[in-house]
Amino acid sequence: MLAHLDNLTKPRGSLGKLETYCIKLAGIQNQVPPQIAKKGIYVFAGDQGIVEEGVSLYPPEVTYQMVLNMLSGGAGINALAKGTGWEVIAVDAGVKGEFPPDEELPAGNRFIRAKIGNGCRNFYKTSAMNPEDVSKTLEQGKRLADDAQEQGYDLVAIGDLGIGNTSTAAAMLIAAGFSPDEMVDRGTGIDQKRLEHKKRIIQEGVALRKPAQTGEAIIEQLGSFDLGMMSGFILGLAGKGIGCVLDGFPVSAAAYIAAMINPQVKEFLFAGHQSKVLGHRPILDKLGLSPIVSLDMHLGEGTGAVIGGYIIELAVLAARTMASFSQAQVSGSDILEEKY
Amino acid sequence: MLAHLDNLTKPRGSLGKLETYCIKLAGIQNQVPPQIAKKGIYVFAGDQGIVEEGVSLYPPEVTYQMVLNMLSGGAGINALAKGTGWEVIAVDAGVKGEFPPDEELPAGNRFIRAKIGNGCRNFYKTSAMNPEDVSKTLEQGKRLADDAQEQGYDLVAIGDLGIGNTSTAAAMLIAAGFSPDEMVDRGTGIDQKRLEHKKRIIQEGVALRKPAQTGEAIIEQLGSFDLGMMSGFILGLAGKGIGCVLDGFPVSAAAYIAAMINPQVKEFLFAGHQSKVLGHRPILDKLGLSPIVSLDMHLGEGTGAVIGGYIIELAVLAARTMASFSQAQVSGSDILEEKY
Repeated sequence: MLAHLDNLTKPRGSLGKLETYCIKLAGIQNQVPPQIAKKGIYVFAGDQGIVEEGVSLYPPEVTYQMVLNMLSGGAGINALAKGTGWEVIAVDAGVKGEFPPDEELPAGNRFIRAKIGNGCRNFYKTSAMNPEDVSKTLEQGKRLADDAQEQGYDLVAIGDLGIGNTSTAAAMLIAAGFSPDEMVDRGTGIDQKRLEHKKRIIQEGVALRKPAQTGEAIIEQLGSFDLGMMSGFILGLAGKGIGCVLDGFPVSAAAYIAAMINPQVKEFLFAGHQSKVLGHRPILDKLGLSPIVSLDMHLGEGTGAVIGGYIIELAVLAARTMASFSQAQVSGSDILEEKY
Repeated sequence: MLAHLDNLTKPRGSLGKLETYCIKLAGIQNQVPPQIAKKGIYVFAGDQGIVEEGVSLYPPEVTYQMVLNMLSGGAGINALAKGTGWEVIAVDAGVKGEFPPDEELPAGNRFIRAKIGNGCRNFYKTSAMNPEDVSKTLEQGKRLADDAQEQGYDLVAIGDLGIGNTSTAAAMLIAAGFSPDEMVDRGTGIDQKRLEHKKRIIQEGVALRKPAQTGEAIIEQLGSFDLGMMSGFILGLAGKGIGCVLDGFPVSAAAYIAAMINPQVKEFLFAGHQSKVLGHRPILDKLGLSPIVSLDMHLGEGTGAVIGGYIIELAVLAARTMASFSQAQVSGSDILEEKY
């Protein structure tokens, strides 16, 4: 891949990280140059039992309402996915409430009904789910990875939608060894008082549940259907030759849990962006991923992932369409430059 | 603009810098929400007399060859502009040599013949140009700003193409008061020995020319037709309601010189990216601009500007197409959040 890039009409290495992304994707797809002809963003929606403890500002019914908004094309992810050429796939992993039948839903975006239950349980009171639901959740995620392959996506991205999901993510990561001070942040924008409350609830919840140090145990005790299904999706992508772009804090938490189960998944992951949420960067660092953009976003839904993912696509486009020195009859192909 | 953004179905401020860009562009265009229906990147090409002193790795004829490559669609900027929807306008501001007549050139990209001369003079030996050429260069740049308005561009970007132009940029900025250690870098990738030589030539050249502290004097003594024309272009955009996205080090140097002549130009400038070239960040800081992306690129041609500019466009798209809370019947429009 590097030889191909070095022969294009530009100083060596001058496309910077675009070249790095291209090289990584070539490795994932096992082809030079790589290609991105079709790409899909899976937005996993679910309700979190922990919202009963008042950790979020928005009422829990907003999860359901926002899924409908996304299916109607009115959510942030719809706008940004449209502008960057991603197909949007809304996944009901565990939203509270029944959605209308397909014929009553707006056309335009795919909707996958993969509900494991009407929201997970409140981990402050009891385990978030039963062990059999952990297996179901991970299995369902793997089936969605099969879906990605069947759809012919060269690149996928993951988004999250669920009131309270930063609390779930923080709890899982604290259980996995991250510092509570780094992991608890304001989510959708709570004030200082509620932040203190959120931090206390999460820390006590983790202490009460005390999961074993495995991905599955952490999902069972502190996870949720949506975050667990993302982990399953990532695990299912292994070996399929498809790159996967992460969004912000909840999605990266799910990726971290997936990497606890199978560390090799890191090889096909990209960090779409660095969100404004405090805990995001330490997870990316631990995963060895460097965010493509850093735009202080903290909306979720995959909005950062589609932007970062589009920059990977631009890198591929440059690699595939730029002229070589000889094609363009430009002097200098023989110049041996010191690498930057 | 903020009231419009706050009413969309997302937590307040959650689109981060995208909201900042949108607000800035709304101010520039004096409309809420702003629009980007058509956008053009002007790539200013020219030869630099200073290359006679051996400051660059590539032979000077590469400038001419790369203009033809760009007109054929084979340059990096063609690939990235295509992927982000920019029209490419190649401007011959002062390339050495005559280009074939239009009918012999490849169709597809606009080519503007604005040559002031066959490359500027070597500032190590004498002033880079005559005072009357400074006026001509700035005037021609202003005419290109008129062109941008006639074309109906809502947003423009500036790219550079010219072997040796990082030397010209560094000399102008050192003359304007920046530190030589920060301003001289490897350009297209020279080795340590040639870097020392480049630094010495530039510092001595600046000391020999000693321009007065005005933009015009600096262009006359140390500038070039291409960089000077960019300054004129930026000056000509003032009052036109068009946002302008800068590329890397040479373009930002031209913007800095333009801001010396009219400091108000800063109000409609965006920093498309932070390049890997050492001196770029200090100029952006001094201009009060924060780079949209930072991808270690150092190719020039506007390749960073079109990526950063596209993110502004995505911001506008989100502002224009997302549903409001009431449209989507989502609870929470009445929630008064603490701003992030």
